[in-house]
Amino acid sequence: MPRALLFDVFGTLVDWRGSLIDHAAAVAGAASPDWPAVIDDWRRAYQPAMNIVIGERETEGRPWRNLDDLQAGTLDGVLAERRLDLPPEQRTALVRGWRALRPWPDTRAGLAALRERHITATLSNGHVGLVADLMRFGDLRIDVLLSAQLADSYKPAPVVYLKALELLECAPDEAMLVACHAHDLRAAAALGLRTAFVRRPAEWGPGGGDAAPTEIPGLIVVDSLPELADRLR
Amino acid sequence: MPRALLFDVFGTLVDWRGSLIDHAAAVAGAASPDWPAVIDDWRRAYQPAMNIVIGERETEGRPWRNLDDLQAGTLDGVLAERRLDLPPEQRTALVRGWRALRPWPDTRAGLAALRERHITATLSNGHVGLVADLMRFGDLRIDVLLSAQLADSYKPAPVVYLKALELLECAPDEAMLVACHAHDLRAAAALGLRTAFVRRPAEWGPGGGDAAPTEIPGLIVVDSLPELADRLR
Repeated sequence: MPRALLFDVFGTLVDWRGSLIDHAAAVAGAASPDWPAVIDDWRRAYQPAMNIVIGERETEGRPWRNLDDLQAGTLDGVLAERRLDLPPEQRTALVRGWRALRPWPDTRAGLAALRERHITATLSNGHVGLVADLMRFGDLRIDVLLSAQLADSYKPAPVVYLKALELLECAPDEAMLVACHAHDLRAAAALGLRTAFVRRPAEWGPGGGDAAPTEIPGLIVVDSLPELADRLR
Repeated sequence: MPRALLFDVFGTLVDWRGSLIDHAAAVAGAASPDWPAVIDDWRRAYQPAMNIVIGERETEGRPWRNLDDLQAGTLDGVLAERRLDLPPEQRTALVRGWRALRPWPDTRAGLAALRERHITATLSNGHVGLVADLMRFGDLRIDVLLSAQLADSYKPAPVVYLKALELLECAPDEAMLVACHAHDLRAAAALGLRTAFVRRPAEWGPGGGDAAPTEIPGLIVVDSLPELADRLR
């Protein structure tokens, strides 16, 4: 049984897409473009932006940049590509929207059930201040708030998972990554962590979530966090 | 009103002395020396041991050592001074006792009340894994578990408070250190943080807690965490 559970946050614990579409409509009012398409473009620009940070740091030692900074840049790019003009304060409000994403219906109870027998921690690409706001927004209780920021990097760079193991005093097989994304789980499994895949079929809208990866030995696949709590008992 | 509250842990949130005296008697059984005196000696050796780490690192760049490591060394010293022999497994059990310290009677409810209007975080010299066990032991809920470990240092080194401000995205006057020790509060106040002193008169046994410092402008002085919640409303 894993001593510690590390949770991916965006997608795994919270519904970024549905929340941001509603948030954008509220922020921009009547002058609404096709928000679902904009939000999807924005989210697709997210991992490449982080990969540039990881790459830059490895090759040139540039300073780490937090998610607010990256998201502001990618939002500008997405809006420019679609020839949409939004005033700066609305752009800032959209970036701040990542701190107010609704949990999935099973998240709060699932985290509580899992916390009974395991140390629970986030392991998010969101920085500490952002994830703190987000967990407060959703009233989600975990024991330790960990972020890629503490490793000055982003997932799936190995240093992020290794820093979490170090801080939680865990050997790799004493920790389990819980995520709805195959690339995150693959990176953790390559370092010897246990892995659990949570299906989030609505992550990218109806029928749009990642399929369970098939090549990770010992991967647990569940449809919800309470189901994971049952499986680990 | 401060946006974030940073809590010292040992003494401020939990009763290290009473808990460790009981723990030591249970660990060592009938062969009990004068445990209150041993525990007090051990605790007095704690800050000097951390100061050596801070000094070593500043002058020679030696690697940081965690609290388990420091406490094992100071316990050996205290036992040797008193010519007490304990088997290694009992020494290890005593060091692990710092992960099972009882909260003061007002701590759990006080943290819950304060969390309603403020981001709450520990700021402990205990490392992340230790504080995680301790907060779980006492069922104490906070938003963010911060430790001097994240700055590779120990309080009262300024870098520890500055790292907490950075991670919580706070200007100094947006954060308040809550502690029962004058030296901790002085270090925070010198960096521009707000400060609150909680009287813990039983910290060192009857009548043995720190007196409130008198030279910190704007210091709030309270007898409990719920009283602090009232004062900040």
